[in-house]
Amino acid sequence: MKKYDVIIIGGSAAGIVAATTGKCCYKDKSFLMIRKDRDALVPCGIPYVFGVLGTTQKNIIPLEAITKSGVEFLNDEVVKIDRESKIVVTKQGEQFQYEKLILATGSKPFVPNIKGKELKNTFVVPKNKEYLDKMIEELKSLDKIVVIGAGFIGVEVSEQLAKVGKNVTIVEILPHILGKAFDSEIAKIAQEELEKLGIRVYTNTKVVEIKGDEKVREVLLDNGELLESDAVIFATGYVPNTELAKEAGLELNKYNAIRVDSYMRTSDPDIFAIGDCAQKVDFITRKSVPVMLASTATSEARIAAMNLYKLSTVRSFLGTIAIFSTKIGNRVFASAGLTEEEAKKNNFDIKVGYFEGVDKHPGSLPNTNKQIVKLIVSKESDIIIGGEVVGGDSAGELINVIGMEIQNSVTITELFISQIGTHPLLTSAPTAYPLIKAAEKVFMSK
Amino acid sequence: MKKYDVIIIGGSAAGIVAATTGKCCYKDKSFLMIRKDRDALVPCGIPYVFGVLGTTQKNIIPLEAITKSGVEFLNDEVVKIDRESKIVVTKQGEQFQYEKLILATGSKPFVPNIKGKELKNTFVVPKNKEYLDKMIEELKSLDKIVVIGAGFIGVEVSEQLAKVGKNVTIVEILPHILGKAFDSEIAKIAQEELEKLGIRVYTNTKVVEIKGDEKVREVLLDNGELLESDAVIFATGYVPNTELAKEAGLELNKYNAIRVDSYMRTSDPDIFAIGDCAQKVDFITRKSVPVMLASTATSEARIAAMNLYKLSTVRSFLGTIAIFSTKIGNRVFASAGLTEEEAKKNNFDIKVGYFEGVDKHPGSLPNTNKQIVKLIVSKESDIIIGGEVVGGDSAGELINVIGMEIQNSVTITELFISQIGTHPLLTSAPTAYPLIKAAEKVFMSK
Repeated sequence: MKKYDVIIIGGSAAGIVAATTGKCCYKDKSFLMIRKDRDALVPCGIPYVFGVLGTTQKNIIPLEAITKSGVEFLNDEVVKIDRESKIVVTKQGEQFQYEKLILATGSKPFVPNIKGKELKNTFVVPKNKEYLDKMIEELKSLDKIVVIGAGFIGVEVSEQLAKVGKNVTIVEILPHILGKAFDSEIAKIAQEELEKLGIRVYTNTKVVEIKGDEKVREVLLDNGELLESDAVIFATGYVPNTELAKEAGLELNKYNAIRVDSYMRTSDPDIFAIGDCAQKVDFITRKSVPVMLASTATSEARIAAMNLYKLSTVRSFLGTIAIFSTKIGNRVFASAGLTEEEAKKNNFDIKVGYFEGVDKHPGSLPNTNKQIVKLIVSKESDIIIGGEVVGGDSAGELINVIGMEIQNSVTITELFISQIGTHPLLTSAPTAYPLIKAAEKVFMSK
Repeated sequence: MKKYDVIIIGGSAAGIVAATTGKCCYKDKSFLMIRKDRDALVPCGIPYVFGVLGTTQKNIIPLEAITKSGVEFLNDEVVKIDRESKIVVTKQGEQFQYEKLILATGSKPFVPNIKGKELKNTFVVPKNKEYLDKMIEELKSLDKIVVIGAGFIGVEVSEQLAKVGKNVTIVEILPHILGKAFDSEIAKIAQEELEKLGIRVYTNTKVVEIKGDEKVREVLLDNGELLESDAVIFATGYVPNTELAKEAGLELNKYNAIRVDSYMRTSDPDIFAIGDCAQKVDFITRKSVPVMLASTATSEARIAAMNLYKLSTVRSFLGTIAIFSTKIGNRVFASAGLTEEEAKKNNFDIKVGYFEGVDKHPGSLPNTNKQIVKLIVSKESDIIIGGEVVGGDSAGELINVIGMEIQNSVTITELFISQIGTHPLLTSAPTAYPLIKAAEKVFMSK
């Protein structure tokens, strides 16, 4: 039986980063990555295969990213983990012994139990090339598309389908779209951008039934409306892929995610779990949350990799900040940490700063966009616990400035007097930089 | 004699922010801003009046920014400060008593003593609307322009003039352009961008003489070359505007900047100084440096304003990080903290991380730019002391992520495992985010 020091099961963002970082930290150890899919897709690029990319072919993580680092790759599926003898068994019947095992088995689409969900032309959005290739092909001849769920995937897929001319309707059960990441006033702006693209958006609305004979024909809403529909896409969330872990007897949490500590170790000291399959704890609330983000996953992957054979307290994972960004039409929406709604729900005594400015200076420059920054601050400690941004493309990195502040427990006073770099063509003015002005609002409200 | 609680002399970025923040912190106090120029220009927008803006009119900081905050405004020049009786005297003969005084008198162009510098069609780049209006007008009929000095102003003015069709040559005395902000390998890329725009760049070259009868005709270099020239622009730095402070007996440093402590107080406890006229201490080296940046200035302004009547240790200025960014052609160059060259010169034992990636993912997306991140890290403490970025427009905010890390003394391990938000259309991939990969390079070199 072949033996490897470290075996990684799964090879999307988390698996790849864990394997390559681990090999880099422990050069003498042998690493094997076993992945079910021959090609791994860039996870956050998936919505764009329906529009600007046009094909999954342009959205593949190159295999060389793994192999050139000295990690061996096997395209096979692990069907069993024998923890006692430290062996994994694959679908093709191979067995490998491991010293350390990293589970990066990811997540799969969750489909709620709605009548008609089995009809032809209902789809999910999995991280699977073959499925998506077929779906792209089938959608070509379908015009009226109902997307159920207005989280990031639902919104991004809808936006891309509208841009290639589809007739798109989104149905969201919650009071506003992008509910986890934004407060209602920001989500409202995002909804307006979707509507500008011709997308109809229903919030506070439930899909009761998908009607049709063999194929989807209509979607019945709980307000009694009947939407004509050629296809339905379920963007109703993802659940951890943890059957393998469960069968191996590893502890799972209430979301069926694998329990891990801050070194990413599971209940078995020689097995680590990272990414969508692993438990997430919110950085601020310290509660278990079902957040699934590649950026969180890669951070966890680095931590698992570094701690494989040698622990260090400075290399522990302190919880997910959930830093998101997306683009709808020409506007970018980004968030980090808690929203105002979430903070209140979690019983935080908070102050909020809000500022609307522009993202270039002077504002007379071409391509100047409105830029909004909202900050959520813990009243007692003055520490920044959340931020939301609306703006042009630069908001995608601006949210990382806020993310850094949250991660480093920066106070509002520190932010208010902090130095930022500005340039006419690239940022707002030093006198009216929305992040600093939002901090000022909080500071002055003391 | 009219009396104000707080008088601010000067009203560009620093003066405006100090006045409005001060008024916000101390609502019961009366504030007067006295400014020589009726219209204040957006300082960093000035190079763009020669190109994309086309006029100074589009580059004015609106007066309402000051007046609507409750600060009174006077368009006059202070010619004397009488510290004993706490009175300022203006050119138009008015006198005002103050309780606290804030000096924000800015800087003015420095012109080296080169033969021929007095000829017609030699220019400087001051923050003065009337001068620049006349200069824009006169440059219209002039084609061959020699810019002396390749700091930010020299580079940006050259870039804009080349874009409107001028024949531009830059002459820089130092070994590479943008010397303060970038190491030579990055500066080389910036130089190539200038050259792509048709700009000729001389480095390691000194202008010996500007020749001409009445007007500029030729520029003689120390390599013997004679450049045909219709105009010369001196972009040879700025010196603090501190005659007033000097006459009032305030202490100046070796750069003629007003000595201040970390609360921005001068040697007179009731007089604060901020912005270009005030001493700058480098955040890392703790040395006095002649850095002049609006972003540093506005941070100092906030600190002075908050500490006018009530000191607090959490509101002190810890030194300038010098966060810059600029755009040349379609490429953005940005830096924060020390360069590798400066760090070595200052006797830091350092490690360097360098990574080249792209700024979107997958890289097959339209408008994907190369993105380079270079990090400079103190070997002993592992703390990040500098960073340089080359990329697309998002580099303008990415440098603020690095700036935040420097300000918060983040270590390379903390950065390496930190969470960042990524999105296909807005940032590089979570698996190959150049900032994290550069951190990895440093981390792995341990």
